Amino acid sequence: MKGIAILGATGSIGRSALAVLDQHPDRFRAVALTAHRSGEALAALAARYRPALAVLVGGDVPAGVDGATAWRTGREALLEAATHPDADVVLNALVGAAGLEPTLAALRAGKRVALANKESLVCGGPLVLEAAREGGGELVPVDSEHSAILQCLQGARAGDVRRLVITASGGPFRGFSAEQLAGVTPADALRHPTWNMGAKVTIDSATLANKALEVIEAHFLFGVGYDSIEAVVHPQSIIHSMVEMVDGSVLAQMGFPTMELPVLYALAYPERLPYTCRRFDPVAAGTLTFEAVRQADFPAFALGVEAGRSGGTAPAVYNAANEVAVKHFLAGRLSFPGIARAIAETLERCPVAAAHSLHDVLEADARARRCAEDFVQRLAPC
Amino acid sequence: MKGIAILGATGSIGRSALAVLDQHPDRFRAVALTAHRSGEALAALAARYRPALAVLVGGDVPAGVDGATAWRTGREALLEAATHPDADVVLNALVGAAGLEPTLAALRAGKRVALANKESLVCGGPLVLEAAREGGGELVPVDSEHSAILQCLQGARAGDVRRLVITASGGPFRGFSAEQLAGVTPADALRHPTWNMGAKVTIDSATLANKALEVIEAHFLFGVGYDSIEAVVHPQSIIHSMVEMVDGSVLAQMGFPTMELPVLYALAYPERLPYTCRRFDPVAAGTLTFEAVRQADFPAFALGVEAGRSGGTAPAVYNAANEVAVKHFLAGRLSFPGIARAIAETLERCPVAAAHSLHDVLEADARARRCAEDFVQRLAPC
Repeated sequence: MKGIAILGATGSIGRSALAVLDQHPDRFRAVALTAHRSGEALAALAARYRPALAVLVGGDVPAGVDGATAWRTGREALLEAATHPDADVVLNALVGAAGLEPTLAALRAGKRVALANKESLVCGGPLVLEAAREGGGELVPVDSEHSAILQCLQGARAGDVRRLVITASGGPFRGFSAEQLAGVTPADALRHPTWNMGAKVTIDSATLANKALEVIEAHFLFGVGYDSIEAVVHPQSIIHSMVEMVDGSVLAQMGFPTMELPVLYALAYPERLPYTCRRFDPVAAGTLTFEAVRQADFPAFALGVEAGRSGGTAPAVYNAANEVAVKHFLAGRLSFPGIARAIAETLERCPVAAAHSLHDVLEADARARRCAEDFVQRLAPC
Repeated sequence: MKGIAILGATGSIGRSALAVLDQHPDRFRAVALTAHRSGEALAALAARYRPALAVLVGGDVPAGVDGATAWRTGREALLEAATHPDADVVLNALVGAAGLEPTLAALRAGKRVALANKESLVCGGPLVLEAAREGGGELVPVDSEHSAILQCLQGARAGDVRRLVITASGGPFRGFSAEQLAGVTPADALRHPTWNMGAKVTIDSATLANKALEVIEAHFLFGVGYDSIEAVVHPQSIIHSMVEMVDGSVLAQMGFPTMELPVLYALAYPERLPYTCRRFDPVAAGTLTFEAVRQADFPAFALGVEAGRSGGTAPAVYNAANEVAVKHFLAGRLSFPGIARAIAETLERCPVAAAHSLHDVLEADARARRCAEDFVQRLAPC
């Protein structure tokens, strides 16, 4: 029986995780659940799963909660959940750079971190690896792409891998011309063709910033150089990623899109547990196609990979600029192409520095946010 | 440095194997090469690869061969090649039931058998497994489908597998109606859309008998029940097979069609060696599609799987009837649908018996051949 702490329990990944727990109540139990502001939703989950700890990071404890669960609020409490003594696995499903600190804390406490928070590795890759080494913690990816790669690598030996090929749905604007892209609205961008996810991730999927973040994550997770990581557009999201071996053979992991399987794999790894979900049927999956990433029309992708190559604080700057830009795009204050422009300008204005500590990263993050806000403000008419 | 004996060196798989040896002369050397009747071709290979032994099973030693290689003829000499003291791996690329005895001999001698001869496991599955146990030999598949499954199973634990999905190109008549199938010629059947193989295997691919043989092989190779092995038509032959795990996740191995990679994998297994061949590119691979097997129109498939389920001598009878029928189809004495009819009648007329020994298998094989010949003769006008 493994104790599971779920950071971000009321979000899309959190709900998938609870569905996994529902099928294996004898293997997994929720020991800590956290949410940002969804107090009522968290209270409902706490009543159902009876964790030892419930944390509402940015709100007040809802009235009438059950005494079986200890309730806390604030960011410090989030770290309490991430290092809870009864937690064997910490599922980090937080959105944004705020996810880095809990990842570091959990790894230093020797936990397995089932990582759905892309920004942990993007902003603090070397710090995260160091925390795992120091604390004896373990990173297991939850992104469907990285879970696919991890599954393909089971049984592989050191030196067997030639290339990672990360698939991208291409998002809702895959076939759009540059002209069309200039006019798309947040509502358009939120209609993802294959995955049902939160707003930030869905916009990142539309700009392909998402894929750049995943390339950076893959670099740190699997120790593969950027020259050996590629992205390919695969609109059906059936093949979740591929690994080319040194002999030229390619392994792939596939299935109908669901986050439950990657979550289950991250919790059970290296075991596999039986699971009931829509069974894969290649005939029902239909036609599978692949296209090159249109780098010129989706510049956020190349900007992100380049930031990854630069290293240091560059990926944190990239990520912060993107977070700010997406926020303003969703609020109608920035055009879709403006997202990549905000990122590019912010990267230009924030020189790459070393990222030796969480402080270095948070400082770069804060500065990049100011830069990106400034960029948006200069565009705004008021 | 591994010594390799290649049984069937002048055929399609043999040539692929020699291409593999060409890229790794420091890892593999040819110690024995055999051919059936292609004496000149074998002499050319012997001059180039200088094996210790060359065997021409059904012919005379060509004039003027090099003294560096010992030349032998006849079936006994084939077993000599299969058990050659310098051979670590015996690549069995023989066609037909004649491949069973060398497989048994090599396994009893403790060799790794890189198995491209489908009939070894189809006709003598339990005998082959027993020979491996007794002699300490090891079976590694060379069929692209089984190599794919073996690769997907690396890192899997006992009980992880829910289902094997073997892909089938569907052959040249995939979309043909029953009426069209009635009129196809040997020349039509020999034009395989994706794989360049020998005549027998190409016809088997057109009738889907090939896929039934592979289902039976998979049953013995991976210890999976027939209810958990499926075939799906995948005309592009890019995904070479899939494995569904108990959690519902599916692993697949893919690549452009070439036999060199499965041969290399079987020789190097569980290692992977660098190899230069056309690099996989999902965009260049184009569109991947899947269709259900049209069992009613390609009855040889279901007949074969049913023979596998029956066990005992049934698969040997199926295989012998198919070999005879294909021979007559190629000679223009049997229609394309006649192949399955010859198999069905032969299976009806040869009751299933136990297959405790090579003798039992060979007897069933011989009887089935007589039955099938009889069926064809009754159809023939003369």
